[in-house]
Amino acid sequence: MNVMYVVAIGSIAALIYVACMFVRVKGQPEGSAGMIKISTAVRKGAGAYLRRQYLGVGIFFAVVFIILLCMAFGGFLSYFTPFAFLTGGFFSGLSGFIGMRTATMANCRTAEGASRSLNKGLKVAFSAGSVMGFTVVGLGLLDLTIWYFILNTVFHSLPETERIAQITANMLTFGMGASSMALFARVGGGIFTKAADVGADLVGKVEAGIPEDDPRNPAVIADNVGDNVGDVAGMGADLYESYVGSIVSTAALAVAAGFGVKGVAVPMMLAAFGVIASIIGTFFVKTKEDASQKNLLKALRLGTYISAVLVVAGAYVIIRLLLPEHIGIYAAVLSGLVAGVLIGAITEYFTSDSYRPTRDLASSSETGAATVIISGLSLGMLSTVAPVIIVGVSVLISYYCSGGNADFNMGLYGVGVSAVGMLSTLGITLATDAYGPIADNAGGIAEMTHMPPEVRNRTDALDSLGNTTAATGKGFAIGSAALTALALIASYIDKVKQLNPDIALNLTITNPTVLIGLFIGGMLPFLFAALTMDAVGKAAQSIVVEVRRQFKEIKGLMEGKAEPDYAACVDMCTKSAQKLMLAPALIAVIIPIVVGLLLGVNGVAGLLAGNTVTGFVLAVMMANSGGAWDNAKKYIESGAHGGKGSDQHKAAVVGDTVGDPFKDTSGPSINILIKLTSMVSIVFAGLIVAVHLL
Amino acid sequence: MNVMYVVAIGSIAALIYVACMFVRVKGQPEGSAGMIKISTAVRKGAGAYLRRQYLGVGIFFAVVFIILLCMAFGGFLSYFTPFAFLTGGFFSGLSGFIGMRTATMANCRTAEGASRSLNKGLKVAFSAGSVMGFTVVGLGLLDLTIWYFILNTVFHSLPETERIAQITANMLTFGMGASSMALFARVGGGIFTKAADVGADLVGKVEAGIPEDDPRNPAVIADNVGDNVGDVAGMGADLYESYVGSIVSTAALAVAAGFGVKGVAVPMMLAAFGVIASIIGTFFVKTKEDASQKNLLKALRLGTYISAVLVVAGAYVIIRLLLPEHIGIYAAVLSGLVAGVLIGAITEYFTSDSYRPTRDLASSSETGAATVIISGLSLGMLSTVAPVIIVGVSVLISYYCSGGNADFNMGLYGVGVSAVGMLSTLGITLATDAYGPIADNAGGIAEMTHMPPEVRNRTDALDSLGNTTAATGKGFAIGSAALTALALIASYIDKVKQLNPDIALNLTITNPTVLIGLFIGGMLPFLFAALTMDAVGKAAQSIVVEVRRQFKEIKGLMEGKAEPDYAACVDMCTKSAQKLMLAPALIAVIIPIVVGLLLGVNGVAGLLAGNTVTGFVLAVMMANSGGAWDNAKKYIESGAHGGKGSDQHKAAVVGDTVGDPFKDTSGPSINILIKLTSMVSIVFAGLIVAVHLL
Repeated sequence: MNVMYVVAIGSIAALIYVACMFVRVKGQPEGSAGMIKISTAVRKGAGAYLRRQYLGVGIFFAVVFIILLCMAFGGFLSYFTPFAFLTGGFFSGLSGFIGMRTATMANCRTAEGASRSLNKGLKVAFSAGSVMGFTVVGLGLLDLTIWYFILNTVFHSLPETERIAQITANMLTFGMGASSMALFARVGGGIFTKAADVGADLVGKVEAGIPEDDPRNPAVIADNVGDNVGDVAGMGADLYESYVGSIVSTAALAVAAGFGVKGVAVPMMLAAFGVIASIIGTFFVKTKEDASQKNLLKALRLGTYISAVLVVAGAYVIIRLLLPEHIGIYAAVLSGLVAGVLIGAITEYFTSDSYRPTRDLASSSETGAATVIISGLSLGMLSTVAPVIIVGVSVLISYYCSGGNADFNMGLYGVGVSAVGMLSTLGITLATDAYGPIADNAGGIAEMTHMPPEVRNRTDALDSLGNTTAATGKGFAIGSAALTALALIASYIDKVKQLNPDIALNLTITNPTVLIGLFIGGMLPFLFAALTMDAVGKAAQSIVVEVRRQFKEIKGLMEGKAEPDYAACVDMCTKSAQKLMLAPALIAVIIPIVVGLLLGVNGVAGLLAGNTVTGFVLAVMMANSGGAWDNAKKYIESGAHGGKGSDQHKAAVVGDTVGDPFKDTSGPSINILIKLTSMVSIVFAGLIVAVHLL
Repeated sequence: MNVMYVVAIGSIAALIYVACMFVRVKGQPEGSAGMIKISTAVRKGAGAYLRRQYLGVGIFFAVVFIILLCMAFGGFLSYFTPFAFLTGGFFSGLSGFIGMRTATMANCRTAEGASRSLNKGLKVAFSAGSVMGFTVVGLGLLDLTIWYFILNTVFHSLPETERIAQITANMLTFGMGASSMALFARVGGGIFTKAADVGADLVGKVEAGIPEDDPRNPAVIADNVGDNVGDVAGMGADLYESYVGSIVSTAALAVAAGFGVKGVAVPMMLAAFGVIASIIGTFFVKTKEDASQKNLLKALRLGTYISAVLVVAGAYVIIRLLLPEHIGIYAAVLSGLVAGVLIGAITEYFTSDSYRPTRDLASSSETGAATVIISGLSLGMLSTVAPVIIVGVSVLISYYCSGGNADFNMGLYGVGVSAVGMLSTLGITLATDAYGPIADNAGGIAEMTHMPPEVRNRTDALDSLGNTTAATGKGFAIGSAALTALALIASYIDKVKQLNPDIALNLTITNPTVLIGLFIGGMLPFLFAALTMDAVGKAAQSIVVEVRRQFKEIKGLMEGKAEPDYAACVDMCTKSAQKLMLAPALIAVIIPIVVGLLLGVNGVAGLLAGNTVTGFVLAVMMANSGGAWDNAKKYIESGAHGGKGSDQHKAAVVGDTVGDPFKDTSGPSINILIKLTSMVSIVFAGLIVAVHLL
């Protein structure tokens, strides 16, 4: 298939772009010795964390690899699956690692750039963010290309239709490796970052009354490390997984829908073309030297929109060429892209302090912390309505325009294509998203090295700009997660039918096993959120104790005469995160298998549907409640409702602290949860079917 | 059907028992003039609220009645439905009204009783609670009996099988009236009670630093009124609806399963026998004069368990006699009863300060309000796991033991029977539940009239005992709601098939309309919770402003020299509750109709399933988080973690305040929401089917 050469070109283009950006970032001045010192400490901390994390995850991967190998030996799986599992995990982890390395290299350089102008700061941060964005898509396409060529060689003797079916079925399973790695990265990184953040805030800001990012706070380096391992490495692994998952599940559905090689080529080509479109988009992200914050936002948006318009044009050509008789599939691409943008806009509306919801939330601080919490929770719950309707409409359009009325599988293929469409410009959307935590870190460095206040103001402007673009990024992440999960459910059922065409499938919602599956699936995100929030709480409490201890025992610390023991806090966060990420991650892997063994494939299908529905709603709610609390606090800090230090501000800080695990640990992890359960179900389908036929 | 005479006897027995208990309560001494004054103020406030509520709801009922009449005229409904709708609403409202009247009569008498001994106090409160419990079951069975005889007379010319089908189909629809009334009562009462509570606490306890139930607090009477209109009248209407809903849906499923008249008789007989068993149980609720709190709990439990054992024995005889070839259905009754008890036990484990979860929650107050909120939310989420599994197992047992393997409809009938089994002892479980708010009110009266501290201690003991028994009551309420909702979904699909056997039903979860229905259904409880919490927040804020105004403007109020304007707060709560209950209630009615018009019956089926699953999980979470926060605060007040007035206590009060709308407004209302949407779907099925066949 010549298409794969195009994909390979897309991958190589992305990786070359990554190299250029990396070199560009590296060539920037690093700043003063103090800045370098802090940046080095953060880099070392983040590196130490990732090493420890990969070690722990390595054990998990080794165990699962052996289990998969045994299953392959027993005939429940193809022999490629265990290895595909490993490569998926490897590339997902590598994406996170490269992104994190670049980010920790860029933080002091961004601060140094910001000391000259806002635009200089943006350039460094955005270039570093681009490294993350294009590493994800480049490595994702690379993994696909390598496996495609391997599998194509192995199955070269089969006739085309059968060969492509074998290839896509095998490729589907390597999503599980990527999902597992992503879950660990998101959960572990999320626990780390929020434990450090909450711990630093609770003792530093609330008890000792010192400002955020004050160098006297022993948890301040850990807090900065957390931004890198959670918001950068975690997000990279997460979106790698979404990207690859949506492509391979759509490819598998193409075979089921009878579209053959050309149907498989559509998502691949869309993705490859999206990389080129994204690279072109990045060239438009530049402004005049004296640009205002508004102009910067325009510049970032311009890049994203140009990429999207290019994809809109290119997708038409791709589908016209490959599936000219099914041009309706083009509507699926469009609906996916539009849905992503709309969910992003809704997210921004509910979480930005330019709009009423967050302002009302800020004003609820007038009556204390309890009303801040109640209003924030209800804001998050309310914000789920529009995304649900948007996803619903998008699914309907994708399904029926792709021929779902005539053939069920064609419609589901359309849903998959819309997810791929949504993620096709991931290179640039992720770049605009990933630069936020870099700017955040730069601000920390500016604060700690006592740079002039205008530098901090500029990094704050970049950071808050990042929050806005991150809202769009979050829209794409959660929207694509829902669509990909739906495509994966369809792939699962398809896989089961392939394994045994005579299996008694009864997927009606009145079948009690489906119903119970729905119930368990609906409960799973709640259990998962509970465990991850608890983990943050526990880890934060240990940090609180440690910070209090240092304040008490290190003489001269509060007066700035002695230095706190930063490394102890980093180490403690690392250990806690490693220990506490295990339970939630294992649950995501084990529950679909247990449900499969007890309730069979119908129960699993119910589980996946219930999990996707409740997971989507809960993830949106948690992300938006958390985002709104964060910005309501910032709004008050900007002078509203009594400003910094007032009782209203204290009430808002409670909201922000509750929101931390909501928006940065539990919420985004649920995105991965809903896909990982589907992936696990697909990989273990052979075993489940065999057990239930005994 | 002679069975209906038995049901009539059950109903009359319950109502006679109610009359006896009412007379007994009324015969107790009312206490001092001060007590009578407060009790009268509470009674008047509650009466005024209910009058206003029934007026507002009356308009809603009139509008819907006319709509239903038009639909009947258009041939989409039977002519009985509009009238059945009215009677359902009437009896549900009447249950709440009688319960509330008795409760407001009993509060001062309970305080007076408690001034003599704990046991005397218990007797009065429990007798008053029994009035509520047996009014609900008595009126429920009365409504059923009357309609049965009317319909039986009208359809007397039809052959038996057809006649019973007509009767059950018509009776099914009057659940909508009961559900609508219940929703208004729960939401309106819930907003009232929590607005008053939160408002009173925020200004009184937190700002002014005066104790709970202090007569100087202008919102204190409103707070006590709230207990009666929310926790008594609201709960009565709620459980009336569960009780009747489970019986009529099971009766309708009996016809679908081909069990005919005898199958219909089973739930009726179970309910009637349950009334007798409950009355017998109440006779065992007595203790020695100097009983300890532990002995009191034993006495209450003894009554409940004796009733349950009697039902266990009686159910065997009933099923043996009526459906001897399907004795497996007996397992459904047992599984329902056991599931109710188990969910109650889980609720108690998670929300009582005798166990670890609530104690850990209390200790999270050491690090401030934010960790109290995070821990409480995660506790509630974690507590959903066991109930989901219990309901799941119970459904499986009921379904398969009732012959679901051979005939789908038989299995669903079994699920319905298990809900009826769970609710059969409602008379006594509701009595042990409803006496809690009465004891709470008595405590308020004791505080306000400056009775000796041991009286308050005794009413507190009764109140906390009530919290424990209420946990069991909540287990039955939420468990039966889930099972009834499932039975109603089955009835809905059955109804659609009856309306048009050729309709294109495709209820598989991969059908996109079902999937989108699932998504919308999964989002609905979140939307509903958001609106009800917002309503509490808004209403509470207006109370806060009013209380602050009175503290400021009424001279000598804080010194106890002047009296606050209690009526202004009651009036304000009433108005807010009336205004704010409309939006959430209308949403529950309108959304299933809109989804039906847009997505057809498959979409509605998905909606109902998604709504039931997410609603169950969210309701359990909100109820348990709220309960645990409440008890964690009480635990700290009892001296742990710094005790009353400490920073830890302040943090716990924030949790309790957030928990108020969770456990008393949103959580229990979701129980009704999941049934009302099903009821609305059933009533409007004729219209939806007709529109989609156009």
